[in-house]
Amino acid sequence: MTNPTACLLIIGNEVLSGRTQDANLKFLATRLGEIGIPLREVRVIPDVPETIIGTVNEVRAKFDHVFTTGGIGPTHDDITAECIAAAFGVPWEPHPEAWRRLEAHYARQTPPAEFNAARQRMATMPRGASLIDNPVSIAPGFIIGNVHVMAGVPRIMQAMFEGLAPSLRGGTPVQSRTVHARGMLEGAIAEGLGQIQKDFPELDIGSYPFYRSEGGGVALVAKGTDAARLDAAAAAITAFIVGLGHTPVVGEPS
Amino acid sequence: MTNPTACLLIIGNEVLSGRTQDANLKFLATRLGEIGIPLREVRVIPDVPETIIGTVNEVRAKFDHVFTTGGIGPTHDDITAECIAAAFGVPWEPHPEAWRRLEAHYARQTPPAEFNAARQRMATMPRGASLIDNPVSIAPGFIIGNVHVMAGVPRIMQAMFEGLAPSLRGGTPVQSRTVHARGMLEGAIAEGLGQIQKDFPELDIGSYPFYRSEGGGVALVAKGTDAARLDAAAAAITAFIVGLGHTPVVGEPS
Repeated sequence: MTNPTACLLIIGNEVLSGRTQDANLKFLATRLGEIGIPLREVRVIPDVPETIIGTVNEVRAKFDHVFTTGGIGPTHDDITAECIAAAFGVPWEPHPEAWRRLEAHYARQTPPAEFNAARQRMATMPRGASLIDNPVSIAPGFIIGNVHVMAGVPRIMQAMFEGLAPSLRGGTPVQSRTVHARGMLEGAIAEGLGQIQKDFPELDIGSYPFYRSEGGGVALVAKGTDAARLDAAAAAITAFIVGLGHTPVVGEPS
Repeated sequence: MTNPTACLLIIGNEVLSGRTQDANLKFLATRLGEIGIPLREVRVIPDVPETIIGTVNEVRAKFDHVFTTGGIGPTHDDITAECIAAAFGVPWEPHPEAWRRLEAHYARQTPPAEFNAARQRMATMPRGASLIDNPVSIAPGFIIGNVHVMAGVPRIMQAMFEGLAPSLRGGTPVQSRTVHARGMLEGAIAEGLGQIQKDFPELDIGSYPFYRSEGGGVALVAKGTDAARLDAAAAAITAFIVGLGHTPVVGEPS
């Protein structure tokens, strides 16, 4: 069985302008791999309605799951929800349960805060959306079709994702094996490594140089869903490095 | 005059798997903004030929400049150059000057290193490509059409970009003004801020919550190319925050 696939849309001018360092890609890539829904593409797009609508419609047809981060707050540039409604061709309207949660949340503040028009936007969603809980700051994300709409603030996004994760039907977890070859250069091992990739066509074998004060080298990484084949590939890589007269380090975190 | 636009392609399984934290997006977004070629989209794509070829052809038609990072080393998963050749429909062949530089580089090592088949791949490029110098590790990037192909290792990519930057025909630099409103919540200022955005349609006005141990708040950021209008927008935002009884901090780094 092939694993389902995922695409991540990072929505927001602040990432494209360099103001904000994205911190969501790595988290979601890692967690999605662990639950067997490998991330196959990421797009970072601006707060422009046509771009959001067009991109959502393109990628929701192309991947099994789409995750979005950003653009669901109360300000004028938070336009993700209305764009997703437009992409699905459904009304953007108050979501009763989201409305109830937010109304209660602002009433609970000391002194009570106003559940004003801007905050009501956060309870306005595409018709038919189901909620993604937000244990950090209440304002929920939502799911419509195969699109999961989450906050951009990493702490909130991570809490949303962890609440959502048990309901995602994943595949076989993606695992990896890493062999570190210190003091070696990619160019010296490329040919042998290419042969190992040919011997393990079902795995992704990658080579990543690292640079450290105590001396650099190359991290050789095998990724895939079959643990026995991963072990065999790690053994083959280790034997190859030993054959070149070096002492590889297996599994050391890079 | 409208500024030219840029798209960044981050090519590599290691970013999509969560193994590697991308460090190139923020650098390029910032530098491209400074030289007036704002980044309008980023895609992170895997080492899959059809995906690379299809994406390059899509985005080079859509944006004025395309920059790629990753996949130009000597190993079997470094397939960017041959995919770009396929995208442009030209042969992938030895580039005489790149070949000369790399051959000399390996001959200079003590003891001399072999300029083997894997390393020769790094001197193999789409026909008609012009080189991007690599002052760090010699193996050049290249330009073909409006596509600029650079290394994935941040230190090397940055050196390549800085060598390239003077030759890029940019537009008006994108500047920003930031006003920090400590202790304020987005929901309380969203409506007024939306009005300011309406008054300055040529600017992008964004609102970004920040969280710090000494107390959070919202950073209000205006971006655009007209310095006088940016100053006016910053003044309007400041007056708005003062009107709400708070003391904004202008220009403090966030």
